Amino acid sequence: MNFASDNTAPVPAEVLAMLGRANQGAAAAYGADALMEQVTARIRDLFEAPKAAVYLVATGTAANALSIATFCPPWGAVFCHRDAHVEADECGAPEFFTGGAKLKLVDGDHARMSPAALAAAIAATGNVGVHNVQKGMLSLTNATEAGAVYTPAQVAGLAAVARAHDLPCHMDGARFANALVAAGCTPAEMTWKAGIDILSFGGTKNGLLGVEAVVLFDPARWPGKAWEFELRRKRGGHLFSKHRYLSAQMLAYLEDGLWLRLARQANAAAARLAAGLAHVEGARLVHPAEANMVFAAFPRAAHRRARDAGYAYYLWPFDQSLEGAEDEALSARLVCSWNTADADVDSLLSVLRG
Amino acid sequence: MNFASDNTAPVPAEVLAMLGRANQGAAAAYGADALMEQVTARIRDLFEAPKAAVYLVATGTAANALSIATFCPPWGAVFCHRDAHVEADECGAPEFFTGGAKLKLVDGDHARMSPAALAAAIAATGNVGVHNVQKGMLSLTNATEAGAVYTPAQVAGLAAVARAHDLPCHMDGARFANALVAAGCTPAEMTWKAGIDILSFGGTKNGLLGVEAVVLFDPARWPGKAWEFELRRKRGGHLFSKHRYLSAQMLAYLEDGLWLRLARQANAAAARLAAGLAHVEGARLVHPAEANMVFAAFPRAAHRRARDAGYAYYLWPFDQSLEGAEDEALSARLVCSWNTADADVDSLLSVLRG
Amino acid sequence: MNFASDNTAPVPAEVLAMLGRANQGAAAAYGADALMEQVTARIRDLFEAPKAAVYLVATGTAANALSIATFCPPWGAVFCHRDAHVEADECGAPEFFTGGAKLKLVDGDHARMSPAALAAAIAATGNVGVHNVQKGMLSLTNATEAGAVYTPAQVAGLAAVARAHDLPCHMDGARFANALVAAGCTPAEMTWKAGIDILSFGGTKNGLLGVEAVVLFDPARWPGKAWEFELRRKRGGHLFSKHRYLSAQMLAYLEDGLWLRLARQANAAAARLAAGLAHVEGARLVHPAEANMVFAAFPRAAHRRARDAGYAYYLWPFDQSLEGAEDEALSARLVCSWNTADADVDSLLSVLRG
Amino acid sequence: MNFASDNTAPVPAEVLAMLGRANQGAAAAYGADALMEQVTARIRDLFEAPKAAVYLVATGTAANALSIATFCPPWGAVFCHRDAHVEADECGAPEFFTGGAKLKLVDGDHARMSPAALAAAIAATGNVGVHNVQKGMLSLTNATEAGAVYTPAQVAGLAAVARAHDLPCHMDGARFANALVAAGCTPAEMTWKAGIDILSFGGTKNGLLGVEAVVLFDPARWPGKAWEFELRRKRGGHLFSKHRYLSAQMLAYLEDGLWLRLARQANAAAARLAAGLAHVEGARLVHPAEANMVFAAFPRAAHRRARDAGYAYYLWPFDQSLEGAEDEALSARLVCSWNTADADVDSLLSVLRG
Repeated sequence: MNFASDNTAPVPAEVLAMLGRANQGAAAAYGADALMEQVTARIRDLFEAPKAAVYLVATGTAANALSIATFCPPWGAVFCHRDAHVEADECGAPEFFTGGAKLKLVDGDHARMSPAALAAAIAATGNVGVHNVQKGMLSLTNATEAGAVYTPAQVAGLAAVARAHDLPCHMDGARFANALVAAGCTPAEMTWKAGIDILSFGGTKNGLLGVEAVVLFDPARWPGKAWEFELRRKRGGHLFSKHRYLSAQMLAYLEDGLWLRLARQANAAAARLAAGLAHVEGARLVHPAEANMVFAAFPRAAHRRARDAGYAYYLWPFDQSLEGAEDEALSARLVCSWNTADADVDSLLSVLRG
Repeated sequence: MNFASDNTAPVPAEVLAMLGRANQGAAAAYGADALMEQVTARIRDLFEAPKAAVYLVATGTAANALSIATFCPPWGAVFCHRDAHVEADECGAPEFFTGGAKLKLVDGDHARMSPAALAAAIAATGNVGVHNVQKGMLSLTNATEAGAVYTPAQVAGLAAVARAHDLPCHMDGARFANALVAAGCTPAEMTWKAGIDILSFGGTKNGLLGVEAVVLFDPARWPGKAWEFELRRKRGGHLFSKHRYLSAQMLAYLEDGLWLRLARQANAAAARLAAGLAHVEGARLVHPAEANMVFAAFPRAAHRRARDAGYAYYLWPFDQSLEGAEDEALSARLVCSWNTADADVDSLLSVLRG
Repeated sequence: MNFASDNTAPVPAEVLAMLGRANQGAAAAYGADALMEQVTARIRDLFEAPKAAVYLVATGTAANALSIATFCPPWGAVFCHRDAHVEADECGAPEFFTGGAKLKLVDGDHARMSPAALAAAIAATGNVGVHNVQKGMLSLTNATEAGAVYTPAQVAGLAAVARAHDLPCHMDGARFANALVAAGCTPAEMTWKAGIDILSFGGTKNGLLGVEAVVLFDPARWPGKAWEFELRRKRGGHLFSKHRYLSAQMLAYLEDGLWLRLARQANAAAARLAAGLAHVEGARLVHPAEANMVFAAFPRAAHRRARDAGYAYYLWPFDQSLEGAEDEALSARLVCSWNTADADVDSLLSVLRG
Repeated sequence: MNFASDNTAPVPAEVLAMLGRANQGAAAAYGADALMEQVTARIRDLFEAPKAAVYLVATGTAANALSIATFCPPWGAVFCHRDAHVEADECGAPEFFTGGAKLKLVDGDHARMSPAALAAAIAATGNVGVHNVQKGMLSLTNATEAGAVYTPAQVAGLAAVARAHDLPCHMDGARFANALVAAGCTPAEMTWKAGIDILSFGGTKNGLLGVEAVVLFDPARWPGKAWEFELRRKRGGHLFSKHRYLSAQMLAYLEDGLWLRLARQANAAAARLAAGLAHVEGARLVHPAEANMVFAAFPRAAHRRARDAGYAYYLWPFDQSLEGAEDEALSARLVCSWNTADADVDSLLSVLRG
């Protein structure tokens, strides 16, 4: 079984079915399809944001980089966690799309920025006239790269720090659904009510083939930004001609709460796995397993057994080796998806227990 | 019926079926899926290019801009036709991805560059040391934006001009299949045998949801370029995590010659339409209808009848108006797709004839 | 003698003297020097623009590219003449500084855009939603690259075309002084009264070591642009630490009308040369010699005599050859500077006459 | 007296005199002046690098950013100290010129990278395929921003770490002369013999109006890079038309060892100041004063006396205040220049002693 990433999972039947339904007759291209109107309406409802601008792209990197470029000038600083996806896993996409903005790295446990560290980073930036980059924007990831979840109150705490400097706030929600069901709040509470201006609303990791929505909650507050986003999306090669197939995926995702069911299943699998690790000798959690990822350390011997039994996951960090002392603990990232069955978790745990 | 663009058409059942087949179990992400190995093998076979590097992206703009950026430095000139998609329809994507290269516009009938005009443009560029941009690369579009087709000999003629200056040659093949079946040659003859180094091998306009392959025919000739392309793809947000769904589309496209059948049907519909226009009073072709697009002028009255009957297509250029004298000729672009039935063509012709 | 360019000339003694005077004690760096306050005050007076933002840089390319980048977004079009310096002689600096804007080339005699051609170019741009680059700004060069001069009325005519589309207007005034004394108007009449928003006010070609002022006439009309310019200047490496030496040059330039005297001398020399060419057999002017440059065609034999006598100038265009028929006319660019003496002109004419 | 920066100082008479000597007759533009040939020859001699490519620009930011952009691709990482000028004081110029490279910050005392920290930073970068930026290059500053000096052995130590990964090595030598005379070695020992590939050879902070040389020691080792640098310089607006005035400054700088005399005087002044601080009650050095900068902490009361007596310097970091307890120590940066007299130092010390 595969615990390497939620992006190794297939997609639920509902999504493919909706592609089939969308595949009828002609449809206007480039986002003018009728399905996209439905998507916009549903996302506005869902987020209680009746004027939100909603756009679809196909990758999380596109959603993040375009959002950041729309809000941060080339000479601006993006404040983000040291482990953020935008810093560590996008090959410099934010720098590329912004024209060379600088990511200022903020510390905090479990890939959550601490408000104090954020405040210090902002305070230290852009105070010497033209000589350094200027305060630009906040970008936080929820759920975090360490599998932790910011509560709405924590989001609001960080956003308040940014707002005190008039900085716009972006949330990378590649695992937004996982964070939301973990936090038990509404989409609005997790985002604009907490001070988020623009959200990368992820679908891919939670069951789509490849669709993320970008939601700009209050376009009127940011004149010109919605149109700028559209131009950047086109210029970046991220506007789909046969856009209906993105719309259809997102529609299926939102229909009857599918997205929440998928996330709950993934989170439950991770919780089951985390709980089970308590019974693996020498195992301990490296980060709290609040969403669908489990970061845990356990003996090399257990890793070897898992490998030999065909389980796929990453040692995390990567520079650890399966060669060495049997009882030395190695840490791993184990990711559950909507498709991870209880039996998959249990069999992995069984192998780990030896 | 819709003649607005080939991107308003649905996709054939074979493509959705392959998505379903691909949707089994776990698959490695980011292009490491097993299906992609098959795609690479088939494209290499198809193009008789056993060492070609093959990459998938989801939009034509991505395929073009990434290809161009990989071969043209920021201070280089891209020689292309004045009407080329990369110049006219990508919101400056080539400039963005290259970091500010300059497109040098070349003239020629039917959106085909003439070798003499290309030679003159190249000769006039980069001759004053550092003071102007340098000779960069050639980018030609086949089929052209005017629905014309370069024969392999014509491609070779342009490529030879570029090669005389050691310039790499890119083909924007958003409608490659349409051009190929029109020219009646092999994929290799149309591309690397004619001097093309890198191809945007379009699938979207010819029946896929959104997939284009980029084919770098001889990576060993261009050390470092294949890897550079991969980095640019990731950094541009164009590397899909659930890449198998791109692979599956391309596999379906290539299986049993589906891609050629689709293109033949589209071209045949366009030929039928062009032939039928000979019987519409006051109608004439603006460009030769060599692939799946018909550019024709006919009286305003006929346009009005078509509109009233619900036919969708673009006046081309856009700045013409349906208001005015009945017998004035307005020119239009009428695009046929794999899904355009003979009956659709005939009924349009009937309406146009009045 | 050297007629190759006005940038091959030395600088007048007044300029070096002012450098010496500025070289006393400590001075605040990065533009905060007291001399810069004087520069700003004088330029505001001179241009009757009491709130103008004034910045100094050291090269014309920097002045132009920074001005353009401040007013044109990456997805914008800069409308300029086909022969404009920004298009032909800056190795793509506008594209680099803007992040990939597109220069849309406008025709017109003597490197002067015609209002009709400009209007057509603007009208043809940015009308298809996100698919092409958007209308960006106007950039005109005065005096032009062909030695012609826009009158204030002509500037106003072009600016009016741009204004009708709310486009900002930039003037590349690398030879502003030459244009001004030719037109016989005030600096204000030539610029903001005619609709110019930002000016590259050249000093280098007219007698300085290397200083150009950028004048943003009405910063309040363009909120944020002045500060953005300052950030772009720093980020582009164009903010001088020992800025006083730029200030001093510009102060010397403006003191007692030195800049106008220098330009008058250069223009007078060019006029003398143009007049004298009427007496060279087979000679004719290619462009009207309205400023300090003479574009003329005359027999190859005369060119050879000039070369043999040690006169330096460029054949224009460059791809002509001194080898060939004696009586064939070759065209040349002959540039006069503040330092060109009547005797230099006369002796050249004498040689050309043979 | 002014201890704010070495860039607040005037220039020595020799430099202005050379400008005067250069101001004779016509000179070829854009670096083709005869003086530049002399500059190149002298720098090659000086650095024992007979094939070095030598270029002049006017600002340190230009020298650094162009050097870095020439050696680091957009998706590369530049390893530099956390306090490096390229990171902290150039408003993101490296990101701009490279097209979005990422500066990876390395720690170490006194703004000197430690080899271990550098090795760790390099080892942690670019190990996950396309997902993160790639290992790019090393950039170190000598003398450092904290007034410390890397010895040739220390430079070689860092360069060896970089070389082990085939990374090119850049030295920001804005205060190269100060470092050199402090280290007591030859220019070659400090640079290419220690593994440096490209040097920003500063003149501005050490007595010029505004000139830095960029020295690429072994162009043959880096095919295409010299020409690329020239194109980037032009495109960046950093190629001077009246280049002779840059050449003249650099010639004066190198003549009869002026540059070394200036640096020795600045360093001696700083040493005198540092030594004198030992006799100021409550004062201590924050960094070793190895070049021409003294970083020291001393009581607020002493700072107030200095301010009241008209001494200019920066509290360092900037966010300290002169308001507060009299005996609290505040740290300051005190920079000496070639123009700082012993009497200036002594009188400052006298004021600080109270």
